[in-house]
Amino acid sequence: MPLQTAGPAHLSFLANPKYAGHLRATKAGAVLVTAKDAAQAPPGTATLVVDDPYAALAVVLEHFHPPAPVVPGVAASALVDPSARVDPSAAIGPGTVIAAGVVIGPRTVIGPNCTVGEGTRIGSDSRLYANVTIYHGCTIGDRVILHSGVVIGADGFGFAPTRTGLKKIPQVGEVRIGDDVELGAGTCVDRGALGSTEIGTGVKIDNMVQVGHNVRIGAHTVIAAQTGIAGSTEIGSGCMIGGQVGIAGHLRIGNGCQIAAKSGIMRDLSDGAKVGGYPATTHARWLRQVAALDRLVERGRSTKGSAP
Amino acid sequence: MPLQTAGPAHLSFLANPKYAGHLRATKAGAVLVTAKDAAQAPPGTATLVVDDPYAALAVVLEHFHPPAPVVPGVAASALVDPSARVDPSAAIGPGTVIAAGVVIGPRTVIGPNCTVGEGTRIGSDSRLYANVTIYHGCTIGDRVILHSGVVIGADGFGFAPTRTGLKKIPQVGEVRIGDDVELGAGTCVDRGALGSTEIGTGVKIDNMVQVGHNVRIGAHTVIAAQTGIAGSTEIGSGCMIGGQVGIAGHLRIGNGCQIAAKSGIMRDLSDGAKVGGYPATTHARWLRQVAALDRLVERGRSTKGSAP
Amino acid sequence: MPLQTAGPAHLSFLANPKYAGHLRATKAGAVLVTAKDAAQAPPGTATLVVDDPYAALAVVLEHFHPPAPVVPGVAASALVDPSARVDPSAAIGPGTVIAAGVVIGPRTVIGPNCTVGEGTRIGSDSRLYANVTIYHGCTIGDRVILHSGVVIGADGFGFAPTRTGLKKIPQVGEVRIGDDVELGAGTCVDRGALGSTEIGTGVKIDNMVQVGHNVRIGAHTVIAAQTGIAGSTEIGSGCMIGGQVGIAGHLRIGNGCQIAAKSGIMRDLSDGAKVGGYPATTHARWLRQVAALDRLVERGRSTKGSAP
Repeated sequence: MPLQTAGPAHLSFLANPKYAGHLRATKAGAVLVTAKDAAQAPPGTATLVVDDPYAALAVVLEHFHPPAPVVPGVAASALVDPSARVDPSAAIGPGTVIAAGVVIGPRTVIGPNCTVGEGTRIGSDSRLYANVTIYHGCTIGDRVILHSGVVIGADGFGFAPTRTGLKKIPQVGEVRIGDDVELGAGTCVDRGALGSTEIGTGVKIDNMVQVGHNVRIGAHTVIAAQTGIAGSTEIGSGCMIGGQVGIAGHLRIGNGCQIAAKSGIMRDLSDGAKVGGYPATTHARWLRQVAALDRLVERGRSTKGSAP
Repeated sequence: MPLQTAGPAHLSFLANPKYAGHLRATKAGAVLVTAKDAAQAPPGTATLVVDDPYAALAVVLEHFHPPAPVVPGVAASALVDPSARVDPSAAIGPGTVIAAGVVIGPRTVIGPNCTVGEGTRIGSDSRLYANVTIYHGCTIGDRVILHSGVVIGADGFGFAPTRTGLKKIPQVGEVRIGDDVELGAGTCVDRGALGSTEIGTGVKIDNMVQVGHNVRIGAHTVIAAQTGIAGSTEIGSGCMIGGQVGIAGHLRIGNGCQIAAKSGIMRDLSDGAKVGGYPATTHARWLRQVAALDRLVERGRSTKGSAP
Repeated sequence: MPLQTAGPAHLSFLANPKYAGHLRATKAGAVLVTAKDAAQAPPGTATLVVDDPYAALAVVLEHFHPPAPVVPGVAASALVDPSARVDPSAAIGPGTVIAAGVVIGPRTVIGPNCTVGEGTRIGSDSRLYANVTIYHGCTIGDRVILHSGVVIGADGFGFAPTRTGLKKIPQVGEVRIGDDVELGAGTCVDRGALGSTEIGTGVKIDNMVQVGHNVRIGAHTVIAAQTGIAGSTEIGSGCMIGGQVGIAGHLRIGNGCQIAAKSGIMRDLSDGAKVGGYPATTHARWLRQVAALDRLVERGRSTKGSAP
């Protein structure tokens, strides 16, 4: 429970210093806190002192809210092609369609009303929530979580202008998703035009993110909601990308880059770059741009004010 | 019918002054107009003078296009868990899956191919169009409209960095949606990490809006398409938020705020604030920033022009 | 295969000059190139000289990856209303629901778990992938491709403020989609409030694009991912609109306009306009704004640096 609504029967936590005031006023029975913050808890609240309250919370929550056990089997209204190989310990929900040649690994759970297209391979212990769509022979790793509305393997956006209009470039590639990846609700990952679109191990992507054809995303990169990455861009590992960011096509973003929310990236970024704005510049320079523009407005006002 | 395409058998209306020219030229049989505009209608067009043509249009349209009557019952191909309680006057579409413990109130209509997860409660006279997904025990009020592709209750985006990668914070909260709420196609409302994500009475949200975990939105607030609200932000009542706005996490937005389209909000806003730009500032100041930048460009040009 | 991963058994191509270096190093057995670039291919690589390698690629790919033949018929678990007219050469996937009065033309393929609402008409040789939703009597042309998660015909966003909250304006119009249109995954096209929302022949729209009520888009216009177009705006033919663009409502965008990614359009644009930024200005002026802001920052720094 959050600090401000928790009661004596609840456990809470303080991870964001912004909420330190809530700790002092909490009615929680116990709190996860760092040694530094522990003294601020009120007398009636037990303190559980840990190095990282947020990571500790994950452990506690896993303990008290274990995932529902998998009930293996194929729902009566699911349609599984005879050539598909579904592990007997996997679960396939009602209304779900599993096409020819699909392989589904041990303990993987596929929710209701999903569609898994021909030749798709999904590893073990993965979870597709309801209404997920996978086309075109994609490969999904182990312990992957795909939320509802995710679409993997739709055609990339490629057209050649001709005299009679735009000619579609057939998209014949695939998508490869590594282990321990999570994709949020409504996120779309297009298949490669040729070759594959690749999402590395441990990548975490929020809701409604667009991943264009032949994009590659390195391991453990995190991408917040509504960001879009245009075709053929390569993103390094360990990057942190804010929400509503746009990244143009055919770029190389280094490892460990940090991109502020709503930025527009039009050039390659070297390892460890911290950028913001549109067109994006270093984060520090972007803040100076904002400040300079503000001073300019102030000057404009005082000039007007001092006019005779 | 719009003024410019309506014929003698049609009723039209003038609500946006931008279209006053269309009123003078309309061939509509009758128009809803204010007293002020009525004189501008051509002789062959009857005028129905009202205080608010747009609100009057709603009343007329409701009269001529009443919602299709609800045909109660559960479609043969729907799957309703025996422990779910579906009111006999409700309708459940084909292919829809209703999980254990779900409660569905009188006259509520659930379209085809929806998935309603365990423990969800939906009030009366609500409408879920096709392909809506609800997870994880959410509560939905009366007269709520959820358009196709809506996902309610997916996990929020919370990870603790550890030495071996990002550790998922189990998301164990829920979503509470008040009465008379409408959510547009593809909109996603994540469940609380702990506690709940809350959408107040009468809130209207357009298509593809992202509502992060533990966000709270006050009554009668309106949010246009493709806006994103990051986790734990609280938004007051009666706000008007444009399209493609981004609002950072852990903020407080007051009541009655107006936020221009595409703005990026990085700080708390007090009641009644009118803001725009990124980082957002007052709407007036944003316009001055734009003007100042423009003057700067002009000066740059004239300086170049006068160089020897 | 891309130039850098292709082997002796593969055909590759060079269309983007950015990748000329990859051509010199490729191991591909053959490449599609222009006469100008052909000399740069390594000795072991055969060159197929063409005017437009990208368009030639489309032809080659069509030859080697022909679309899977349509297997006509209605899946056992599909539900087709007796009043619907499905051409015998069309295919309807499992779990798909076809409502009353729907008409589906020759050789059209509708994937699994789609919902096609009452009165919808779909032409010939069109393709709906899995999980597409169409409401409310829309009209779809020939050779149209709709990717998974597309929602056509949801209500537009129209509310009249009243003393007791916002009153919904019933949305009673439809959507008309021309021939040879492609809509990307998760894209939403709202029905007209009155009259129709119209998408012209040959229009190509990427993933997660929002098309508001009563928008009209002219023939052969191309729109990249995550762009949003507010209600009643008219867009000309042959426009190229980047990703994450926002276009306000009730505007007229001329023919052949080019709009840079992430721009915000608040005014009408005349034919052939090239614009960028927010608020958008000419592309050239936007670049000057960016440069001017940068000079301003530099000046701020040097002033500080020279301070005693």
